[in-house]
Amino acid sequence: MFEFKLLARQGKARAGVFKTPHGDFQTPVFAPVGTQATVKTLTPEHLKELGASLLLSNTYHLYLRPGDELIAELGGLHKFMQWPNPMLTDSGGYQVFSLSDTRKIDDDGVTFKSHVDGSTHRFTPERSIQIQNNLGADIIMAFDECSDPNDRNYSAIAMERTHRWAERSFEAHKRPDQALFGIIQGGVDPDLRVKSAEFISSLAFPGIAIGGLSVGETKADMHSTLDLVTTLLPENKPRYLMGVGTPEDLINGIARGIDIFDCVLPTRLARHNAAFSSEGRLNLMNAVYARDPRPIDETCDCYTCRTFTRAYIRHLILAKETLAGTLLSIHNLHTMINLVKNIMASILDGSFESRVSGWLKQWHGNAERENFTVSTRYKK
Amino acid sequence: MFEFKLLARQGKARAGVFKTPHGDFQTPVFAPVGTQATVKTLTPEHLKELGASLLLSNTYHLYLRPGDELIAELGGLHKFMQWPNPMLTDSGGYQVFSLSDTRKIDDDGVTFKSHVDGSTHRFTPERSIQIQNNLGADIIMAFDECSDPNDRNYSAIAMERTHRWAERSFEAHKRPDQALFGIIQGGVDPDLRVKSAEFISSLAFPGIAIGGLSVGETKADMHSTLDLVTTLLPENKPRYLMGVGTPEDLINGIARGIDIFDCVLPTRLARHNAAFSSEGRLNLMNAVYARDPRPIDETCDCYTCRTFTRAYIRHLILAKETLAGTLLSIHNLHTMINLVKNIMASILDGSFESRVSGWLKQWHGNAERENFTVSTRYKK
Repeated sequence: MFEFKLLARQGKARAGVFKTPHGDFQTPVFAPVGTQATVKTLTPEHLKELGASLLLSNTYHLYLRPGDELIAELGGLHKFMQWPNPMLTDSGGYQVFSLSDTRKIDDDGVTFKSHVDGSTHRFTPERSIQIQNNLGADIIMAFDECSDPNDRNYSAIAMERTHRWAERSFEAHKRPDQALFGIIQGGVDPDLRVKSAEFISSLAFPGIAIGGLSVGETKADMHSTLDLVTTLLPENKPRYLMGVGTPEDLINGIARGIDIFDCVLPTRLARHNAAFSSEGRLNLMNAVYARDPRPIDETCDCYTCRTFTRAYIRHLILAKETLAGTLLSIHNLHTMINLVKNIMASILDGSFESRVSGWLKQWHGNAERENFTVSTRYKK
Repeated sequence: MFEFKLLARQGKARAGVFKTPHGDFQTPVFAPVGTQATVKTLTPEHLKELGASLLLSNTYHLYLRPGDELIAELGGLHKFMQWPNPMLTDSGGYQVFSLSDTRKIDDDGVTFKSHVDGSTHRFTPERSIQIQNNLGADIIMAFDECSDPNDRNYSAIAMERTHRWAERSFEAHKRPDQALFGIIQGGVDPDLRVKSAEFISSLAFPGIAIGGLSVGETKADMHSTLDLVTTLLPENKPRYLMGVGTPEDLINGIARGIDIFDCVLPTRLARHNAAFSSEGRLNLMNAVYARDPRPIDETCDCYTCRTFTRAYIRHLILAKETLAGTLLSIHNLHTMINLVKNIMASILDGSFESRVSGWLKQWHGNAERENFTVSTRYKK
């Protein structure tokens, strides 16, 4: 029911295809995030036009509202949100740690309060898998604990717990039409990461995720961790770098052997009036665009850039019209999906290694992580 | 450049076609409102899919932000908002009277404060036309004064001023590629309405609007005013009932000889989580829809009803996702556009008079004007 096939390699970079019950998707792939069973401000038709193939949705949010049982009763997540193509849900672990004000972790699981209404809930590996079984995404994730990468002691404890929880998640998983991926933790400590990569690879997961990155470590630490971990992973399983990132992060991740990415950044930037561009990141609210008849990015062929001027988008922003967010989300997602598509083509035709430095240079100006940290609410 | 052709009549109801520099539109027509150069939550592609033919935008709002000169510099309103089909702008008069907290009317014009930043501005008939010439819509409106319909003395004064301003608007209008319509006022007083209808009809306007209705008068008064006025209007000019209304109002207006309608109601209701339906108006936030697998309206074939459940739309509302507004706007606008399209077909095939009472009955439950008065901020 699931099959990962490698089509080509260039250095560590890989091009492949992953078969799921809701169709195949090619890798490398960038998955837009639909936290609450919708990619903010877009219809499923917009996402199809963008060429999105894999969507991510968040277990924590859907469990709290509208509830996984309600979604199951209505035919599952694909039907509920009318996305007929591949989907992935996370385990809820990351959100429990980052969004909940009060949470208590023990070796069995986590008790936390809802950010919606303050009510108390408990997630265990078994519960997370049960909820994800109810939601019905094609790819689901083991329940894990994401540590502060700069705290070695805590990272060691969280990693050990993540390993026990990986085994329990594997045991609890019931649906053969869903592929359960394991998650590697270990912060930025090489010994921990080696241990975690080896342990998670030893289990029979059909795919392997790298968690605990892009949560406060330096870029250099992220890259050295990826360099190390990817050498230890089996070649025949897809590798998923969770919650990453900017266009530059994608290029760097692919060059290090990553196949799957997801990030809220394109739609979150859109809500902050910001756009990726080959000139660097633009904030369309800037007065300099008031009479600018150009598209956001003259090299872009997305619907927004084919159709609207910077001046019009700035007007929509100032007038507080939600269409601004829609148009910027379309552009930012197109940028990511199109970049990954071009990179895949270059891996297939053997030009990736000669083009990678050019891409990194082109997209460097969009990687201002200090302004828009992906995970600003991380709490130990 | 402009031509109105009547195709068929059934009683007082008319079917026709109006030719403009941006294409023809059939009448009766319902024009969605894009107050700030965008129909809230929708892209121009959505509007094309809905079969919208004529869009309205608001001179008052666009003058204040982003400014009519900026729009002219960027090629005019059609190009600015990327609506290639017919457009109409109002004169700004109604908004000056209803939105501005401080305004002073004299026979020459109106001085008012911006609802955006409190700055002081002045509209005269000449200034309104100059702004509308800058915006460049196909149909533009004479500057008028809308009175409290229940205040006869004020209605008489406002009507006389409207007549002088109609003459001045006509004189000031410079662009032959824009059709300037005159506006009839006179509250709900039959003598005033007769006088105004005769005066406005005596000028060489290519179309005639009826203003000052749906602003606080009873339904009975609206209907008797329409009955009276439409008998006095030339047959060969299109008739535009401004700012009206509900599905029921449209049916009643068409039966009385109206050709053109506009109203914010479909998109405003959408922002209040409400939907037109053949069962009567629904509020999708209602808990009764939490697990409802049906579309909003089982008899509707819009994108929203073909695709999504009530349960999903309710989830989006509770999760504060803007997609809820998009999906409800699509449904509500489709309802209006489709109703008018069906009515036009019935006028053409001669079945209107036998079907009108059925339509009125079907849509009656959507006409709760007491809950959603179109113009709640009317001030004398």
